Amino acid sequence: MSLLTFVHGTMSSGKTTALLQEAHNFRLHGLNAYLLTAAADTRSGLGVIRSRIGISAEARIFAPGEDLLAKIAAAHEKAPIAAVMVDEAQFLSRDQVWQLSDVADDLGIRVTCYGLRTDFLGRLFEGSAALMALADELKENTGVCASGEKANMVLRIGADGQVLIDGPQVLVGGEESYVAVSRRAWKMAVSATLAGRPALRAV
Amino acid sequence: MSLLTFVHGTMSSGKTTALLQEAHNFRLHGLNAYLLTAAADTRSGLGVIRSRIGISAEARIFAPGEDLLAKIAAAHEKAPIAAVMVDEAQFLSRDQVWQLSDVADDLGIRVTCYGLRTDFLGRLFEGSAALMALADELKENTGVCASGEKANMVLRIGADGQVLIDGPQVLVGGEESYVAVSRRAWKMAVSATLAGRPALRAV
Amino acid sequence: MSLLTFVHGTMSSGKTTALLQEAHNFRLHGLNAYLLTAAADTRSGLGVIRSRIGISAEARIFAPGEDLLAKIAAAHEKAPIAAVMVDEAQFLSRDQVWQLSDVADDLGIRVTCYGLRTDFLGRLFEGSAALMALADELKENTGVCASGEKANMVLRIGADGQVLIDGPQVLVGGEESYVAVSRRAWKMAVSATLAGRPALRAV
Amino acid sequence: MSLLTFVHGTMSSGKTTALLQEAHNFRLHGLNAYLLTAAADTRSGLGVIRSRIGISAEARIFAPGEDLLAKIAAAHEKAPIAAVMVDEAQFLSRDQVWQLSDVADDLGIRVTCYGLRTDFLGRLFEGSAALMALADELKENTGVCASGEKANMVLRIGADGQVLIDGPQVLVGGEESYVAVSRRAWKMAVSATLAGRPALRAV
Repeated sequence: MSLLTFVHGTMSSGKTTALLQEAHNFRLHGLNAYLLTAAADTRSGLGVIRSRIGISAEARIFAPGEDLLAKIAAAHEKAPIAAVMVDEAQFLSRDQVWQLSDVADDLGIRVTCYGLRTDFLGRLFEGSAALMALADELKENTGVCASGEKANMVLRIGADGQVLIDGPQVLVGGEESYVAVSRRAWKMAVSATLAGRPALRAV
Repeated sequence: MSLLTFVHGTMSSGKTTALLQEAHNFRLHGLNAYLLTAAADTRSGLGVIRSRIGISAEARIFAPGEDLLAKIAAAHEKAPIAAVMVDEAQFLSRDQVWQLSDVADDLGIRVTCYGLRTDFLGRLFEGSAALMALADELKENTGVCASGEKANMVLRIGADGQVLIDGPQVLVGGEESYVAVSRRAWKMAVSATLAGRPALRAV
Repeated sequence: MSLLTFVHGTMSSGKTTALLQEAHNFRLHGLNAYLLTAAADTRSGLGVIRSRIGISAEARIFAPGEDLLAKIAAAHEKAPIAAVMVDEAQFLSRDQVWQLSDVADDLGIRVTCYGLRTDFLGRLFEGSAALMALADELKENTGVCASGEKANMVLRIGADGQVLIDGPQVLVGGEESYVAVSRRAWKMAVSATLAGRPALRAV
Repeated sequence: MSLLTFVHGTMSSGKTTALLQEAHNFRLHGLNAYLLTAAADTRSGLGVIRSRIGISAEARIFAPGEDLLAKIAAAHEKAPIAAVMVDEAQFLSRDQVWQLSDVADDLGIRVTCYGLRTDFLGRLFEGSAALMALADELKENTGVCASGEKANMVLRIGADGQVLIDGPQVLVGGEESYVAVSRRAWKMAVSATLAGRPALRAV
């Protein structure tokens, strides 16, 4: 029953809410839920997982290069852990995902990772690719496009409200910088931008 | 893309949180999410959907015998509905589930129903059985047993804290009256009770 | 890892092919896959599971009222069983589904049941309802409607090629007697029949 | 209803059987199922999709660099296509997966891709990574490990029956060259090999 699960979805699809609900369920029973989030994302404050819907919880930070098997094993020795939940899992390195698989396989602790599937150009993040490769279970949290369709892609939006199609893969931002859209809406906005017709935020 | 979905799970598995998150996502885009909950469950106040995690939203009520296709079609005519979300869907009648399938098939509106799968004796509720028969998609929201295992059954608890194995199918109550457990824990508690050995809440 | 799974779908959705493939995979490794099918369905010959795609395997029979926990425990004692696969699982009684859950929970043997979800009037079969209530995992095998849409309902067809809307729930037959259709096509055919306009097989 | 689906799994998990069953279902209704397989894999003969369980069907070939939107659009113009099914989808390029997403989004044709998830070192293939990024639906076909556990990794086996941990990503071979195992069994075999203790095929 100890499993590595990847709950993936676009921005605003409710991944963090689902994580906080899951942690709440464990704690109701007095079970120790160990929460981790990325140092890269400081929007909620370092060590806080906060959902847009208005709930939050304290969490440990995972830093680039940190050995997560060692970190979790040490915590588990002090106070037995019933489940590990990782937010912003797209920022895990491939090595860290293997370490989390060892937490499941060797320590027998269930690990659930919540994160973005793809970046603003439809490419998997490093952590997402490793989880897509190794997780025992893949679950999609579906967002909603302004069209009412299911959103499974994300557009990056510049300060002027226009769609951006280049830049670094990681650029932390909220709803002012990214918008979740259907694949069809994404293709239309990106094609228009490539053709020199500015695509407005209002896809 | 218009679909009838049944999100089922035990008490405290986070179904209502998931519903409220989904409604929030639609409303962020200015899309009209039409919320329904049962008249039978007045714990949150009539016309309110409230999650244990501390969030809530207003909702319309569905009453026994009410024609939900007519009700939703009338509302849709006044203000176009992007999606319907139903809480406490186990209390729908079989006819009402067929009506909701017509909302999906004839009005082209996506309908997501959130509800309990089974009662305290492991039997489907009427609404749950009809949704299990007709929904395009079945998704499980998993709860947690005190053992740390996945919870997919529910025990009914009496005022004295002991497991009850008879009584009416519907008896609205909260965490003082019901506890979500694994199937294995459920069988142990029910066997003990049948054998005259009182099973305590602490399964 | 020992689980009770229900793989449900309409006629001709490939359930039996999936069962035979699964059994083949176990046997490749020298693992003992224990196959069961209903006495009610003698189309393939008693004790044979046969897929329309042209493959088959020998199987034990489950009869109404038979205790499946006792039957499987006895076989397991002679030759350890790695997994149980049940075809035509809609014909299981509610008690037999509980017994199969005991095979998973008490004997620690994985059980996968393959069967129809609903009858020709969109009602769960007894075995399907109990599996929908108790299974750890529900998976849909999707069929295809003549319209190209996903088929999740079934129409019963009379000798004259017309849609039937009454008769006993169980009436064993093949592709001459049943046709898998989308919910939309099912509603059109049944409405037409109710209205006295014969709905032809060619939905 | 037009969708891009990725059915992934290890070798011997029954992906090809599932593809052939799906094609069979479409053809039963006189619907045109367009089958594609990789030029790279000539084990079944060029232009044949063959399942280990003993069934097969003719297929078109996709070659590296070929434009699959143009290819399928041309075929669709001659004879309308109801669904596209792609075997050995791990060998698709990233561009070809985008083209298949256009077949779904622009031509409105459902596309189902069947392929390996990861190579012998637990890394996504190029086609698998792009499908994991873009598909509307991800489904796992689970194989079986010799241990009886679910198999979701694959080991490469040399001529001497020992586990190989280097070599090119693509090296077409059958059951003599690859073995599907659980993640736990994979880690044990690879660790042993790294430690200079030859891991035999018999994991």
